[in-house]
Amino acid sequence: MAPAVKLSTEPDAVAPYARDQGPVTDLVQPAVVVWPESIKEVQAVMRWANHHRLAVVSRGAGTGVSGGAHATSNCIVLSLERMNRILDIRVQDEVAVVEPGVINGDLNAAVAPHGLMYAPDPASYRRSTIGGNVATNAGGLRCAKYGVTRDSVLGLDVVLADGSLIRTGHQTFKGVAGYDLTGLMVGSEGTLGIVVGVTVRLRYLPADTRTIAAFFPDLASAAAGVHAVGAARVQPSIMEFLDGATLEVLDRIHGSDLSKRGGALLLIQTDGFGAQAEADVVRGVLTGLGGTVSDEGADEAARLMDLRRHSRGDEVDDEYRVGEDVAVPRSRLVEYVGKLQAMALAHKVRLKVVAHAGDGNLHPTFWISTDEGVAGMARLDAALDESVRAALDCGGTITGEHGVGQYKLRWLAWEQQEEVLALQRSIKQIFDPLNILNPGKAIPPAGDVLKVGVPLDN
Amino acid sequence: MAPAVKLSTEPDAVAPYARDQGPVTDLVQPAVVVWPESIKEVQAVMRWANHHRLAVVSRGAGTGVSGGAHATSNCIVLSLERMNRILDIRVQDEVAVVEPGVINGDLNAAVAPHGLMYAPDPASYRRSTIGGNVATNAGGLRCAKYGVTRDSVLGLDVVLADGSLIRTGHQTFKGVAGYDLTGLMVGSEGTLGIVVGVTVRLRYLPADTRTIAAFFPDLASAAAGVHAVGAARVQPSIMEFLDGATLEVLDRIHGSDLSKRGGALLLIQTDGFGAQAEADVVRGVLTGLGGTVSDEGADEAARLMDLRRHSRGDEVDDEYRVGEDVAVPRSRLVEYVGKLQAMALAHKVRLKVVAHAGDGNLHPTFWISTDEGVAGMARLDAALDESVRAALDCGGTITGEHGVGQYKLRWLAWEQQEEVLALQRSIKQIFDPLNILNPGKAIPPAGDVLKVGVPLDN
Repeated sequence: MAPAVKLSTEPDAVAPYARDQGPVTDLVQPAVVVWPESIKEVQAVMRWANHHRLAVVSRGAGTGVSGGAHATSNCIVLSLERMNRILDIRVQDEVAVVEPGVINGDLNAAVAPHGLMYAPDPASYRRSTIGGNVATNAGGLRCAKYGVTRDSVLGLDVVLADGSLIRTGHQTFKGVAGYDLTGLMVGSEGTLGIVVGVTVRLRYLPADTRTIAAFFPDLASAAAGVHAVGAARVQPSIMEFLDGATLEVLDRIHGSDLSKRGGALLLIQTDGFGAQAEADVVRGVLTGLGGTVSDEGADEAARLMDLRRHSRGDEVDDEYRVGEDVAVPRSRLVEYVGKLQAMALAHKVRLKVVAHAGDGNLHPTFWISTDEGVAGMARLDAALDESVRAALDCGGTITGEHGVGQYKLRWLAWEQQEEVLALQRSIKQIFDPLNILNPGKAIPPAGDVLKVGVPLDN
Repeated sequence: MAPAVKLSTEPDAVAPYARDQGPVTDLVQPAVVVWPESIKEVQAVMRWANHHRLAVVSRGAGTGVSGGAHATSNCIVLSLERMNRILDIRVQDEVAVVEPGVINGDLNAAVAPHGLMYAPDPASYRRSTIGGNVATNAGGLRCAKYGVTRDSVLGLDVVLADGSLIRTGHQTFKGVAGYDLTGLMVGSEGTLGIVVGVTVRLRYLPADTRTIAAFFPDLASAAAGVHAVGAARVQPSIMEFLDGATLEVLDRIHGSDLSKRGGALLLIQTDGFGAQAEADVVRGVLTGLGGTVSDEGADEAARLMDLRRHSRGDEVDDEYRVGEDVAVPRSRLVEYVGKLQAMALAHKVRLKVVAHAGDGNLHPTFWISTDEGVAGMARLDAALDESVRAALDCGGTITGEHGVGQYKLRWLAWEQQEEVLALQRSIKQIFDPLNILNPGKAIPPAGDVLKVGVPLDN
């Protein structure tokens, strides 16, 4: 390897790079962590790894929740955190060019003085990197209106498995030359190449923003609210659903009384020149459905939105929990949450649900006390599997925005037919013939636990 | 082939299927045209073609302008025009499922009563099919705000080269399971598979729409207007630029006096709950820059927008013309059009330019009189090549929305490095090992020095 590349094999130094925030079943330490500071250094690392056929797990801030950045046996962890320069902000073009280690929130802070924003806003935006967001095709709260990471990425610089450097996509808003290699890279979790540069499209900071909180007696009435907002043809920038159990958890942590005020909460934000007019419509339709709607300009709505935005980190030590990230068609929200509730009862586990209701992306969490031991864990696991099956039965997907990583490999074949998996393996083979790029992630290897779940006939 | 599939080998019947609206250098007649009416029939055709190693050129309405649907030697043309059923409109999910032959405008007509729209709106929307739009990743006027075809496609049903059927993507708004095969298919011009079903995301019909026409003395001041609208952080749904030569052509056809009123025209549409407020801002900034801005609610603005929307078809018999579809970063618009004007002068050809200014996508047209003969054609060709080079020099792309097809193959290697082309050839090889799917389109074959002559007509 190029001698200038900073690296370490010290156990204390590599230990923090052994995993991301996803569930770990078998903790593996990296053989070495490298911290390249330039594209040339990344290329040197990849040439070296390619020559020695060593696995390379690339990572940004390690905030992923599917194990996509978990270390694998005898691997090199390639941490891109030092490649954190914003290379260019082209204000008139409404484009920025960044290194992969730039933190999402830092990019937004840099472009805000120009009246611009980078739209994708995962909950981890204060720590996660643009490169990591690209790897997982990260979503966030604003997706319903502004799209996911893919929708803001115009082009990529990518170091391939053999150390060569390619540029995909374009620097313009539109471009259809050749196959969409940019789209193929986005969400591929470091299994097809190392993203070393990202050209993103910026959007306009909204002229105005309005936030509305609406308590409903129960899930069904809140879901009716989601559909009523849609039927009024208002496109909120954010539309979050929190169930009663989530409100109880928030009350316990913050000493609030949210759960006394309703069995479900909708938090809605409108933005742009029509924000006020849209908020008026939203307020009207939700009140008409029996919602208890926050007063105009009420501080509480904005405060609750902030609470929701940062609602991760409410874990307590005496509980085990498993969280999911399925998405279902919007019309199936009530049915699906009903199924979740039935599962929780059947498996004797606790359940809370938050959802990006605007795009049908749910984050249910099942949990038990730690004192329930192995039997409890087995029940958790059973509920989790069942919840994923049920999402697929509703016409949904196993992952709306978190990625397959390592943890969800066992479900991918439930969603995708063998022919589709085989095509993906063939694509992986083109980009990574020695299987050194994040092996065992994103795509299940051939012959592994393959059971096609969704019949395809038409 | 399955005996039930309707087909013809009659010269008169197949002749209309020999080409699309792109330039033709060497007209080839299909050996046979087939009109499948179901997925099973498409599968039967592909199995038969695969067995006999026959080329298959799939097509929708043939409105493409890059030759992507031109017949190739001894090919089967697979016309999807009879697979034109809207299979499902899921109003609450804001999703529609269509066969590939559904006409873009027909889908919009079907969903409009529900307050929904299918956003991509190529100029050909009254004739072009959703399948064809998918094949080229078609754009249109509303792209700046609503994105291109890719941004509205959630999932695809695809018949592969061997006749097998796969389903890509998801039925939900969000989904990141596996590599993005949907994105790979969109824009691949029938070279990776036959799209037999499309699940699209619908958007809300805007609550309000405002149209503004602003005449400017010249190109530079009009371009300043484009940037001023952006700097005011207004996102129009449409922002079209027409140069003076285009105004002259319109005057000649329609007997209007547009060219007397300015040297360039901006047509801007705002929509949504903030349409009026946005239009007020736009009107203010354009007037401040010296634009002659249409009065609020003026019929003329809407009439001009309609004219622009249907401005194709202004060709006259005594001229040869070549049109392009480059995109450049927005800040380079003035510079680029200046270069075009210099080229037109240098090569003694006429020039007019319209642009989707909101996303930097330009459609310059060079033309000459037919009596200028071969020498004139050579000048046209030189100007065209130079215009494409210049767009790339500005950081642009050879095709913003029309696709590479057959006609732009010679330019693709100007834009994309050999490694990127090689990756695409490898992907093509996975999906189409016998090279029977629209061979010779979208991706230049390895080692082929491509030089396409001057088109015979347009």
